Amino acid sequence: MKALVFDKELIFVKDYPKPMPQNGEALIKLTYAGICNTDVEITKGYMGFKGICGHEFLGIVEEINSQDKTLLGKRVTGEINLGCGSCSDCYNNMQRHCQNRQTLGIYKKDGAFAEYLTLPIENLLEIPENVKDEEAILIEPLAAALEILEQVHIKPADKIAVLGDGKLGLLISLVLSTTQADLTTIGKHENKLNILNKQGIKTKFLKEVNEIKCYDIVVDATGSIDGFEKAVSLVKPRGIFVLKSTVAAEKPLNLAPIVIDEITVVGSRCGQFKPALRLLQKNVLNLKPLITKIFNFNQAKEAFDFAQEKGVLKVILKF
Amino acid sequence: MKALVFDKELIFVKDYPKPMPQNGEALIKLTYAGICNTDVEITKGYMGFKGICGHEFLGIVEEINSQDKTLLGKRVTGEINLGCGSCSDCYNNMQRHCQNRQTLGIYKKDGAFAEYLTLPIENLLEIPENVKDEEAILIEPLAAALEILEQVHIKPADKIAVLGDGKLGLLISLVLSTTQADLTTIGKHENKLNILNKQGIKTKFLKEVNEIKCYDIVVDATGSIDGFEKAVSLVKPRGIFVLKSTVAAEKPLNLAPIVIDEITVVGSRCGQFKPALRLLQKNVLNLKPLITKIFNFNQAKEAFDFAQEKGVLKVILKF
Repeated sequence: MKALVFDKELIFVKDYPKPMPQNGEALIKLTYAGICNTDVEITKGYMGFKGICGHEFLGIVEEINSQDKTLLGKRVTGEINLGCGSCSDCYNNMQRHCQNRQTLGIYKKDGAFAEYLTLPIENLLEIPENVKDEEAILIEPLAAALEILEQVHIKPADKIAVLGDGKLGLLISLVLSTTQADLTTIGKHENKLNILNKQGIKTKFLKEVNEIKCYDIVVDATGSIDGFEKAVSLVKPRGIFVLKSTVAAEKPLNLAPIVIDEITVVGSRCGQFKPALRLLQKNVLNLKPLITKIFNFNQAKEAFDFAQEKGVLKVILKF
Repeated sequence: MKALVFDKELIFVKDYPKPMPQNGEALIKLTYAGICNTDVEITKGYMGFKGICGHEFLGIVEEINSQDKTLLGKRVTGEINLGCGSCSDCYNNMQRHCQNRQTLGIYKKDGAFAEYLTLPIENLLEIPENVKDEEAILIEPLAAALEILEQVHIKPADKIAVLGDGKLGLLISLVLSTTQADLTTIGKHENKLNILNKQGIKTKFLKEVNEIKCYDIVVDATGSIDGFEKAVSLVKPRGIFVLKSTVAAEKPLNLAPIVIDEITVVGSRCGQFKPALRLLQKNVLNLKPLITKIFNFNQAKEAFDFAQEKGVLKVILKF
């Protein structure tokens, strides 16, 4: 099958072996896949991954290696973490924190930039008819944005800043706009901030932000290590700082302000798909402006390069 | 009056002007003062402080510039932060987070390494007779240790590690031993860890710790930026990491594990004195072994040098 494979460099191959669904797994024929910043980080060495990248996908279940054939022929997406199934994290339905987990297209499991992938059937989620492909394909980053609401109690009177107007920053802003909190998104790009303005969300240019210690909650979604110190400077004493940026880079950081102002830093990663799907079904957010371009999968390498260009938001591969 | 003054270097002077209690303030004649790591950090440039260091003290109220003379002649200690009195933090009894605060011996307010100091009477706390000087002098760091219980819900079934066997690490361990959690203190010094063993607390040598991601809560009290990464490696996914170390040093830090394992980092600093006093009055902890040596105040400079020697715990000045 055709696949976009990373092994020191990114190569589009045409003869990658088609995966075989193991016991309890389904074989999924891809219809759409999204390119994520994590995919880009992987090509810079993140997680030391080798194989087929990609973890945001939609597909049709073509084969099931299990008695339960319910999902056969259905349009599905899937949770990307595969727990070991026998540890306490898995037992507590926290497969995404299992220490022996595999992660689709990120760690020890071939991913979605290929004609086929396999996943355990319990990872799969059927997409209802009233949810469009161009929105369903965003379910994984949408779930990651929703994870903040799982972890932090956001109160109606809270003053919140989201730092960063990349894909994740925009999705987080849209998700947080479903609360009654006083939300401001801080970014650098007029066109990206406009997407939020059109949906009633206040925005500010980073260069215009000179206030300090005035937000109850600050979310760093800059995807850059430089966002950290700016974000910390915006949090009120005893406030909450949600760290969403996973980056491979390391730089000197002064942690004293976190102690002095008794800030709580909440590391936040993947989320659960079911609440994200409920949000999509409500049809209250317009996610379409987040997709910059859809490429045919045969142009996967060009799409990957394009995804790294300035000003580009989500890039989708269509199979 | 005699005073230990920091202005680029630490000097013991004999003719420092005696402070005048302002409206609402008391003049306190010092009887004991404790030397804290923060004092040492200040002499390395922390907070850019110039003046009389020292913020751990006991004294006798000698003069009160207020109608309310209740505390005159009493043995007192005092909360070290002076709020502006007119902001929302002060209004919410969070003077210690007021953005215009002064801090005794740390920021814009002369401290306790002198024959006299002044503090607002509302900062003062009378020490009951049944609490000994050698325990009361530890109330400020004891309150800082108790602050963890203010911020984090510690459950009886939690597995907790305290990293660091310095003064603060030992105090935190003793305070956490008042809960029913499964507590282990990890350090480098047999003599220091022994202080905990004798009070029924489990300890481990750092070099013997090879487990990872196994504690619900990890407290970093190493006072060193190097403690950070070790501490993070010990926290379970979705666990809590209490950061107690304020250090001036900056070093490259990889924050990705915090995001990937969704760790909550809780910055923790000063605490409230009243609960610390209640703990002292119960007389359940033996704090005396934490005091290595008591110097006469005239030997303050020698005491300060001694406090920085290896293996030394709390050093006290007696006036």
